[in-house]
Amino acid sequence: MSYTILDASNLEAYLFSLPKIKAFFDADSLIIDEIGDGNLNFVFLVTSSSNGSRQLIIKQAVPYLRCVGESYPLSKERMTYEIRSLERFAQLSPHIPKIYHSDEEMSLLIMEYLNSHIIMRKGMIEGIEYPKFAEDISSFLANTLFKTSSLYLSSSDKRTLVSQFIGNSELCKLTEDFVFTAPFMEDETNAELPELSDVAERIANDLELKTKILHLKYKFMNQSDALLHGDLHTGSIMINQDETYVIDSEFAFVGPMGFDVGALIANLVMSWVSHTVQDNDSRYSDLILETINSVWQRFDEKFRTLWNETEESALLTKGFANDEILKSYQKQYMQTLLQESIGFAGCKIIRRQFGIAGVEDIRGIEDDAVREEANRLAISIGERFIKQYHTVKTTDDIMKLIKA
Amino acid sequence: MSYTILDASNLEAYLFSLPKIKAFFDADSLIIDEIGDGNLNFVFLVTSSSNGSRQLIIKQAVPYLRCVGESYPLSKERMTYEIRSLERFAQLSPHIPKIYHSDEEMSLLIMEYLNSHIIMRKGMIEGIEYPKFAEDISSFLANTLFKTSSLYLSSSDKRTLVSQFIGNSELCKLTEDFVFTAPFMEDETNAELPELSDVAERIANDLELKTKILHLKYKFMNQSDALLHGDLHTGSIMINQDETYVIDSEFAFVGPMGFDVGALIANLVMSWVSHTVQDNDSRYSDLILETINSVWQRFDEKFRTLWNETEESALLTKGFANDEILKSYQKQYMQTLLQESIGFAGCKIIRRQFGIAGVEDIRGIEDDAVREEANRLAISIGERFIKQYHTVKTTDDIMKLIKA
Repeated sequence: MSYTILDASNLEAYLFSLPKIKAFFDADSLIIDEIGDGNLNFVFLVTSSSNGSRQLIIKQAVPYLRCVGESYPLSKERMTYEIRSLERFAQLSPHIPKIYHSDEEMSLLIMEYLNSHIIMRKGMIEGIEYPKFAEDISSFLANTLFKTSSLYLSSSDKRTLVSQFIGNSELCKLTEDFVFTAPFMEDETNAELPELSDVAERIANDLELKTKILHLKYKFMNQSDALLHGDLHTGSIMINQDETYVIDSEFAFVGPMGFDVGALIANLVMSWVSHTVQDNDSRYSDLILETINSVWQRFDEKFRTLWNETEESALLTKGFANDEILKSYQKQYMQTLLQESIGFAGCKIIRRQFGIAGVEDIRGIEDDAVREEANRLAISIGERFIKQYHTVKTTDDIMKLIKA
Repeated sequence: MSYTILDASNLEAYLFSLPKIKAFFDADSLIIDEIGDGNLNFVFLVTSSSNGSRQLIIKQAVPYLRCVGESYPLSKERMTYEIRSLERFAQLSPHIPKIYHSDEEMSLLIMEYLNSHIIMRKGMIEGIEYPKFAEDISSFLANTLFKTSSLYLSSSDKRTLVSQFIGNSELCKLTEDFVFTAPFMEDETNAELPELSDVAERIANDLELKTKILHLKYKFMNQSDALLHGDLHTGSIMINQDETYVIDSEFAFVGPMGFDVGALIANLVMSWVSHTVQDNDSRYSDLILETINSVWQRFDEKFRTLWNETEESALLTKGFANDEILKSYQKQYMQTLLQESIGFAGCKIIRRQFGIAGVEDIRGIEDDAVREEANRLAISIGERFIKQYHTVKTTDDIMKLIKA
């Protein structure tokens, strides 16, 4: 079907035109709720009128930024990259909601409704513990990153993968602008935070910091390690006590692995900051630090296991490297990946303080003084992450940079 | 026109079907000579029968490796990448032969015949001096590399460029196999050189060397700095006392800049090795070292000048970096580029000793003992380049690694 914007008036007819979806609902009519609270797309929860447990999510991109309107055009082809990446990730990991239907032409995705899960950021703000999270997300990261890299794919399959995502220019440009650029200079898109003007000025003129940011931005633009989610913060994760699902991958592209790992660490650090400045005891914030440690340790172990199970790849021809050479290279590879993750995490933390898009964990703090304390603590961690990422060798080093 | 293999029987009719080419020759008939001595393609020199100065080169790819025949299939689409890269380079630099006609469908390129130029490798073997070379090639490298990078292009133009070359998988795979892999292990494609078996074994088991080679191969596969020629040795350069032209860019892809710079340095070093072991005096070999120094110094200066003239790019938003920050980043950028160039040069030098494709400068030495001396000298330089590329800060450091 050629592109048509769906709304309450035509969505039911469209869904009934898809035999598989019609069969799923098995009803005369559908209950349609527009539930999207995101910035970019329209999201509908559709429920069978005859069976309330038959529910699906319909997500459609429109050729503008939904939260602003038609005055902010943004190509609807972003959905193409969300579809392609979710379908690829779903082949590699169980931590993706079930996809019922996708249509690049319609910029549309029909997915499982996760009715017992919530956005992880909201859960963490409430101090909820997620005992399966470190295990699940480390598994998602290891499988999706390793198996879309030159350490696993053939040379030609890797280039095909790059070609499938190289067109996602607009969303990559948003990241380049809003993660690596605007927050570190005077820019009209930044949040108005006069109380932080001293820090903003310090950062804008810090030679070491900004030189390192340029290195990291350059890597973001020119290092095609693996297929990334591209925006893997705690708002892109649906979770409960038993299960973890990754959603909203419209920023997907083939880029540096550390950018996904770093996004996750950055958002865990910001939750730590939020709890540290607000909670009476350190129980939950200590748990967050343990989660950061555990995510990396498990990721590192799973990634190496996948690697050791791989006989041949674009990088490694059978017979090229003996076990000792391979282990030496792996050790350096994982250390560089950890370092780059911390560098990217630093950029992500600082951009969430100064930039257009804050995080609820910190921007949502009502008391001005406490919120400013959180901003300053987060910024100081971000600065240390960026300036010292090259020195990080273990997760203990990360803890030191957080608590310094 | 759909793909048809051209030969002496149908070439004239084809050329006369192209109005611009027919007008160029302005003759009733053409003299056709097949002159290709390369491995990959058919090359014809075509001359007007009524005017011997009206000459063009016709180059066509066939769907197999020309030097082996139909038993070694190789996609003729390689010519697509040669056409696209030469046309792009021609917009950026005068050091590309004039292109009269190109046809991706026909895998065909019609170019200026450089009748007073020779392949630079042959000239260097004869000890000919090329006073314009360092100036010309540094200008070619600075313009083509800088202006196809994120330091010059917009984010979206850079991604479009990557997409135009990402399909050149087969030729990239040849480089991955024959530059970074086979020469450093037991492989049936390697040259039979029993006299070097001690060195081959040392290299095959050298942990530090092979770990570094894996790093360099990974960069080749995953670092998309700029549009590269991809095979920039002295056999891909046509030269005389006044002019320098770059040809044969079928290996073009968006990769690490150091790979082109390094290819050039590697081939100058191998010429130095050849003259050092054969010449009675060091005049020409000293001149080669001065050429290496001069190519880098001029390249570095031109590259920075282009950079300083660029107000905005994918990497650098106006207002992000003050002059001091920019200079600091530039310094680190150029140093990393020099280091990576030396690392890649090391791989290229060693592969030309052990691998399937030698260089005439060394393989052409008739005296077995002198040739072995050259092989060993070249290999020892290659090993130092690979192991110590991270330590190189200036061209003096390169000279030390060469002469150690």
